[in-house]
Amino acid sequence: MTSDQLNEVAAPRLATSDQQFQGPVGATASGRYTLRPLPFDAVRLSGAGHLGAWQELNRTATIPHCIASVEASGGLDNFRRLIGESDTGFKGYRFQDSDLYKTIEAVGWESGRTGEAPWSDYLAEVGRLLDKVQEPDGYLNTWVQGNESESRWTRLEWSHELYTAGHLLQAAVAIARSTGDTIIPAAALRVADLIVETFGEGGLDMVDGHPEVETALVELYRLTGEKKYLDAANRQLELRGRGLLPEDRFGSQYFQDHLPIREAAHEATGHAVRQIYLAAGIVDVYLENGDKSLLEAAESLWHSVFGHKAYLTGALGSRHRDEAFGDPYELPSDRAYAETCASIASFHWNWRLLLATGNGKYAEEMERALYNAIAVSTSEAGTSFFYSNPLQLRTGHDGSTEDAPSERLPWYACACCPPNLARLVASLHSYVASQDAEGVQLHLYGDGELRFDSSSAGIATLRTETRYPWDEQVNVSVEAGPGEWTLALRIPAWCQDASVLVDGAAVSARPDASGYVRIRRNWEGTTTVSLQLPMPARIVSANPRIDAVRGAVALAKGPVIYCLEQHDQEPGVLLEDLRIDPAGEIREVPAEGLSGGFTMLKAPGKRVAPATAALYADAPTPLEGEGRPVELTAIPYFRWANRGEGAMRVWIPTA
Amino acid sequence: MTSDQLNEVAAPRLATSDQQFQGPVGATASGRYTLRPLPFDAVRLSGAGHLGAWQELNRTATIPHCIASVEASGGLDNFRRLIGESDTGFKGYRFQDSDLYKTIEAVGWESGRTGEAPWSDYLAEVGRLLDKVQEPDGYLNTWVQGNESESRWTRLEWSHELYTAGHLLQAAVAIARSTGDTIIPAAALRVADLIVETFGEGGLDMVDGHPEVETALVELYRLTGEKKYLDAANRQLELRGRGLLPEDRFGSQYFQDHLPIREAAHEATGHAVRQIYLAAGIVDVYLENGDKSLLEAAESLWHSVFGHKAYLTGALGSRHRDEAFGDPYELPSDRAYAETCASIASFHWNWRLLLATGNGKYAEEMERALYNAIAVSTSEAGTSFFYSNPLQLRTGHDGSTEDAPSERLPWYACACCPPNLARLVASLHSYVASQDAEGVQLHLYGDGELRFDSSSAGIATLRTETRYPWDEQVNVSVEAGPGEWTLALRIPAWCQDASVLVDGAAVSARPDASGYVRIRRNWEGTTTVSLQLPMPARIVSANPRIDAVRGAVALAKGPVIYCLEQHDQEPGVLLEDLRIDPAGEIREVPAEGLSGGFTMLKAPGKRVAPATAALYADAPTPLEGEGRPVELTAIPYFRWANRGEGAMRVWIPTA
Repeated sequence: MTSDQLNEVAAPRLATSDQQFQGPVGATASGRYTLRPLPFDAVRLSGAGHLGAWQELNRTATIPHCIASVEASGGLDNFRRLIGESDTGFKGYRFQDSDLYKTIEAVGWESGRTGEAPWSDYLAEVGRLLDKVQEPDGYLNTWVQGNESESRWTRLEWSHELYTAGHLLQAAVAIARSTGDTIIPAAALRVADLIVETFGEGGLDMVDGHPEVETALVELYRLTGEKKYLDAANRQLELRGRGLLPEDRFGSQYFQDHLPIREAAHEATGHAVRQIYLAAGIVDVYLENGDKSLLEAAESLWHSVFGHKAYLTGALGSRHRDEAFGDPYELPSDRAYAETCASIASFHWNWRLLLATGNGKYAEEMERALYNAIAVSTSEAGTSFFYSNPLQLRTGHDGSTEDAPSERLPWYACACCPPNLARLVASLHSYVASQDAEGVQLHLYGDGELRFDSSSAGIATLRTETRYPWDEQVNVSVEAGPGEWTLALRIPAWCQDASVLVDGAAVSARPDASGYVRIRRNWEGTTTVSLQLPMPARIVSANPRIDAVRGAVALAKGPVIYCLEQHDQEPGVLLEDLRIDPAGEIREVPAEGLSGGFTMLKAPGKRVAPATAALYADAPTPLEGEGRPVELTAIPYFRWANRGEGAMRVWIPTA
Repeated sequence: MTSDQLNEVAAPRLATSDQQFQGPVGATASGRYTLRPLPFDAVRLSGAGHLGAWQELNRTATIPHCIASVEASGGLDNFRRLIGESDTGFKGYRFQDSDLYKTIEAVGWESGRTGEAPWSDYLAEVGRLLDKVQEPDGYLNTWVQGNESESRWTRLEWSHELYTAGHLLQAAVAIARSTGDTIIPAAALRVADLIVETFGEGGLDMVDGHPEVETALVELYRLTGEKKYLDAANRQLELRGRGLLPEDRFGSQYFQDHLPIREAAHEATGHAVRQIYLAAGIVDVYLENGDKSLLEAAESLWHSVFGHKAYLTGALGSRHRDEAFGDPYELPSDRAYAETCASIASFHWNWRLLLATGNGKYAEEMERALYNAIAVSTSEAGTSFFYSNPLQLRTGHDGSTEDAPSERLPWYACACCPPNLARLVASLHSYVASQDAEGVQLHLYGDGELRFDSSSAGIATLRTETRYPWDEQVNVSVEAGPGEWTLALRIPAWCQDASVLVDGAAVSARPDASGYVRIRRNWEGTTTVSLQLPMPARIVSANPRIDAVRGAVALAKGPVIYCLEQHDQEPGVLLEDLRIDPAGEIREVPAEGLSGGFTMLKAPGKRVAPATAALYADAPTPLEGEGRPVELTAIPYFRWANRGEGAMRVWIPTA
């Protein structure tokens, strides 16, 4: 078929039922949504605010860097070589195509966000390659197609074929929703149709070693309305944990194939990204088919993760060996694996749970991950990245391998994380608010503008001015026609004394059980809502079952976790020898030498006498001396490692 | 050649210069030994004592179990299939032959220890297989020989060809010294000659990814007096760290190939077993060629290991991912990799350093590893094993994979550790004492008898009676002819008030700088030396830079580290919720329900209020309540996990 012919076939299937411009979760009318996403173009974050500036950095630095790095690492040559346009060998891992797919998903959302099309030639070239390489029956995977010793669908435990296909589906949805292009979506539809044919009802009883296709298939269902995709996603969920994947040295938990999903829901286990992608797929299928037992399974997993297995930064996955969750409370700071992709997966998962339930605790975890575990992975310049995001780097750390580098790297042999960041940040504005029959809910506070189309009261515009998370003040100016609706403002759990003024008059700022202050009124005209979220620097302590941080506390301000970096401490004083006085007064001072206009924290503490050389001693008391007073300097955790190598720690031992 | 012909060729080369029956380190007359091993048959440990009973268990349980398990796991069929005697495929890892070699080394030493030959048929069968499979030029490796896609010496970074050959050499030395068999030694000589030819001066500039052959070649030099083996060992040392091994995802540190050995000596790094086998080889070459810079490198490595990277139990290797040392002070209890083979390697390495220097600090680390990190790896029954030896197992631990099982397993896919234990324990008596020109030194105390041939004063017999490490009393009865010599008794560093009586009269028990009390006298007649090593239960604390055990202490008695096991605590009280009062009185009570006649410890503590469900809290204080008093029960760490699954911890948080 020619491209034109392909377009003709695909275009009608890509016309969604309503004419809204939908974002990453395109809620259907029939789905079980307590809250529904706003249209993708209903929110615009401003570059004057923290989140909007991040989106700008993504546009100007991260996305171009991803495009160039995917090209340099063979992501396009792997296609070209199959059609005689390159004579290089296959480069990268067997899921190398997925780096490209996440990058074009980012390009798709970013094009949709701004309405500009600076990368249209790039998308056209990628579309051309997909179209040329794709086999007549729809199969498309450059690793399998280019490797004579591989045959399709035979080694799903490691081949990542459905995982990789899932990323193409998600990219195609972003592109279909954001741009006029139908070449890439058409290729994706052919892939998806082959998947349904192969693995749908009556097809192979098999699952992929890496969950991902589930949530992608649901999104394709949302785009096209074709229920076969939803059913195929559900089938992938239901087949998991039936022993269909061969046992591996990491055990079947690694693949979440040890138990059927409902029986496995009591404990998050195995590879963290796999587990959370699967969890997001579980909620996605629930949202569209209404099987409450799926929601219950996802909620049970959530309690395991956030009750026993999450880092203070929102990062997930304690173990390097198999990139996995550990035992309950096994949360080492130094060897935290804390993969960027797992934090992004957590953000996506919590968003789906928030839409399903309306409970602000999920937005709380989105915010925690966003400002800490996710934000830390990107450098100030937007062009280098952590893959693993530990909470401590020791003096004398060996950062010579990609596994645990001392500084962010421009790219990785396994580069799943950078383009995952790019696609998230390009769509970030779509996660800050939602709507329901009552009105609009603000979950994340960012400077910008939001358009809300109330069925009863017409269009309202909410202009938010804020320097959040660096400032406690969030001013929302509401312009609306006549009609009553509810503005819900999330009160973060760390905020003990929020206050709200409506046109200067105080209203109750006590959050309800879901964590929101709800202001219901007739908003006709212009109304100023002033939300104050006092965020004095505070001490955070850990559950005493977390052995790794016993006797230590952390510093935080608002949603931002802080850390000590060696650079900022008194010369000659090793980070390892500092102690904090948790009862001391914490001073807040403007940051110096780091961009972003944030606050540094100064806390009283002491330097303990250098430890003796002995590792162990027969003595009832620690080896420390009394120490001399020093002032500790803390910076936001996500800004560490922007000034060269040096030790860092989030958890600070107490005096 | 027929077997007889082989014997004729080999036998003269196996005749050592002196007629002593030498053990694992057969010191040459020309070597740089401060202390020299006693002949292998000069020490006999009695089954009435702890160490002798361990040797008996090794004989009756562990060695037969290893023989059967090596057979069951294909260790012999891998040979048989190459000569048409088996039609199975190759089984196991590419270094599978080494399991067999370590097993026959254990059989060799055990045969030599008792003078009995219960496994002579077994050795004959192994010898027959080696002889038949070995290629005419001496090459012998069932993985490479049986795999058409492999060719010899081409993938040394992972092939383990020299590592595997090294274990054959060591087995052959044990067998040559202990039994009349020359078939296996002859095969080993042909392998060694091929190695010298291939990798000796003028040969390939290449090293093996896994050090081991160095110490084996030195031992073959000690056996045969043929200097080419020593030179080849030295060449392997000198070629390391020249970038000859390709970079791997674990980095060249993994193989200790990042820097030449002297430059790399400031920090122990990479795979722990590789590092310590290499370190032992460094000392071995020094001992025989006298290159002091090698001894200096080994001492520098020792300071890195025991100053920054060793567990309280003597275990080495913090990381599961690459079975590696971590950063300085990175010593997690729960994810301690602490491979059994690394502890055994440490024991061997420290013995060589002790022989080189005479410094008791090395014997101290041998004893620490022996009673803790090494002993814990074997079950009471002697037939199941830990590969990884963590210092904590959490409630809710997932022990479903071999990587971190909740209990010892009978065998492993990678079964390097069990036969390594068998060969160590079979030769254990050869490490308890040494001699020099002054006299005899007792390093490890075990019930048994020792014959010492003093050049000046003839033969002396030392009969030691002791229940050490369960009792403080060590009585040594010396029978000797006329002549002056020195009996040196090691005073362990944990013992603050040792006392020594000679025939009832007190002598100074203050150790010298090397850690020994030295009694010099004319021993004519029978003399009773009573050494008392008071070993009240004590509290051990850790260097405050070890974050993983901050706020916690350990219990110890003598050389034995204790642990809490869930089984022994009050019903319904989770190990995670117990706190110890480090100033409280520790009661010592006889053990119940566990074999070995040891002491349990009872320490006062409290149970803290169950932690809240929250992982983290905005509060300046921990989440614990005041707690109610409880008595904690501790057992020797090495006896844990003999009563079914359950949580365990060595480091106990303080109240």
